[in-house]
Amino acid sequence: MKRYRGLIVDLDGVVWREGKPIQENVEALRILHETGAKIVFLTNNSTRSRRLYSQLLTSILGFNVKPEDVVTSAYAAAKWLKENMGTSKVYVVGEEGLVEELLREGHAVVTLTEARSCRADVVVVGLDRNLTYKKLLIAHTLIKWCGKPYIATNIDATVPMENADMPGAGAILAALEKSTGRKPVYVTGKPDPWIVEIAMLQLKLDKKEVLLVGDRLDTDIKAAVKLGIDSLLVYTGVARPQDVAKSSIKPTYQAKNLLEGIRLLKLA
Amino acid sequence: MKRYRGLIVDLDGVVWREGKPIQENVEALRILHETGAKIVFLTNNSTRSRRLYSQLLTSILGFNVKPEDVVTSAYAAAKWLKENMGTSKVYVVGEEGLVEELLREGHAVVTLTEARSCRADVVVVGLDRNLTYKKLLIAHTLIKWCGKPYIATNIDATVPMENADMPGAGAILAALEKSTGRKPVYVTGKPDPWIVEIAMLQLKLDKKEVLLVGDRLDTDIKAAVKLGIDSLLVYTGVARPQDVAKSSIKPTYQAKNLLEGIRLLKLA
Repeated sequence: MKRYRGLIVDLDGVVWREGKPIQENVEALRILHETGAKIVFLTNNSTRSRRLYSQLLTSILGFNVKPEDVVTSAYAAAKWLKENMGTSKVYVVGEEGLVEELLREGHAVVTLTEARSCRADVVVVGLDRNLTYKKLLIAHTLIKWCGKPYIATNIDATVPMENADMPGAGAILAALEKSTGRKPVYVTGKPDPWIVEIAMLQLKLDKKEVLLVGDRLDTDIKAAVKLGIDSLLVYTGVARPQDVAKSSIKPTYQAKNLLEGIRLLKLA
Repeated sequence: MKRYRGLIVDLDGVVWREGKPIQENVEALRILHETGAKIVFLTNNSTRSRRLYSQLLTSILGFNVKPEDVVTSAYAAAKWLKENMGTSKVYVVGEEGLVEELLREGHAVVTLTEARSCRADVVVVGLDRNLTYKKLLIAHTLIKWCGKPYIATNIDATVPMENADMPGAGAILAALEKSTGRKPVYVTGKPDPWIVEIAMLQLKLDKKEVLLVGDRLDTDIKAAVKLGIDSLLVYTGVARPQDVAKSSIKPTYQAKNLLEGIRLLKLA
């Protein structure tokens, strides 16, 4: 590998799409790994833990991916809380992955009963495919009537599925914003640059040595631009070439896929 | 009763507040009824059927209130669908009251299984305290991926509760609007004037003979203004005198409560 010694790689639309590995990109990641490149994976998806992602990535890529090599918006939320509010009592609208990351950072997750009587410091909202009106009501009450702050893992309106999509964390957030009249105090996912800085810390490289690879302009590339990191947009996910023409957000490089990208950049 | 021979009366904040009857207003309604005034009740709440509301009102007011004397946003939705789309196959995000009104107007309510394979003509969204992510996902899929239209019973962000409130139909709507990127083709509740016209049909009186009584500027009074009906704002619910000063929506009359209002207007 030439100039770039480390990569920050998005998952959905880069490593896999609709749950299926994207072969050209997987092959490119294997080649990059063999050249000794450092790779950190970065996703706005808060439903799985870093532990589970590392297992999944290891089995798909065929080389060892450690939990520390994965940064999720759930992990970023847990870290943000610790740094800004200390270890906290959290009411979670979200799935197991989010709960696991919060517990690992030393936070406590409160029960429905505790939350009902305002016994939580903060509400954390991510995608929750087990969402119920009761969960929504309790989050609403904590935010609006107990005066607790809330943070969101991401604002993605939808999550891609095979031939369709489903409501994302951003949709749940929209309901809470509407009913409480309040905005989250922080959103940890891309395009917020802080989550990319967490990945940078893990890489321990200079900015100039790092390339961010993603499939979306509004999250991946936007975050890279904000932080002054070079980026490669691959057309294996959401963005299309015409989107780049229309957008003010410009990637440093573009390629059909990561394999083409690393040839273009002479990375391997 | 003098000039006004009929009244259109809002429920929440006028007949009751936080589930408890508002005594001065209840007394005024009894007096008006004794003078021979025609009274129709009008609510944006879609969770109860007109049948249940008539039972509840009869027991609180002590005079007979028929289901036809009650107009709800759920009933208006069922009527709007019939008039604009014919009897339809409906996927419902809402409660029993909404389902009952749809069935009474001759519509069919589809199952989750049918809805999953696009077998619905339209989605109707109201407050649903049994909301789940699955219900949201199916509504999202019908709207975005099956291309079905959707209508909403109302856009109220919250529903008042004792010392607090809870997310309303407008919050559920916000989630769907965010994830689908589509707006409902119609919203039946106040401030849309059509629901008031339904109440007018029931009263069979000239516009000049009807007074609309409500506690909110943005729904009740706004609808009356749109339709050119006189209105009385009572301060037993949401609005406060300072709200009227700030708002461009002006009621014809204002009173502390309905008893004061009918004395002021010399209605009894």
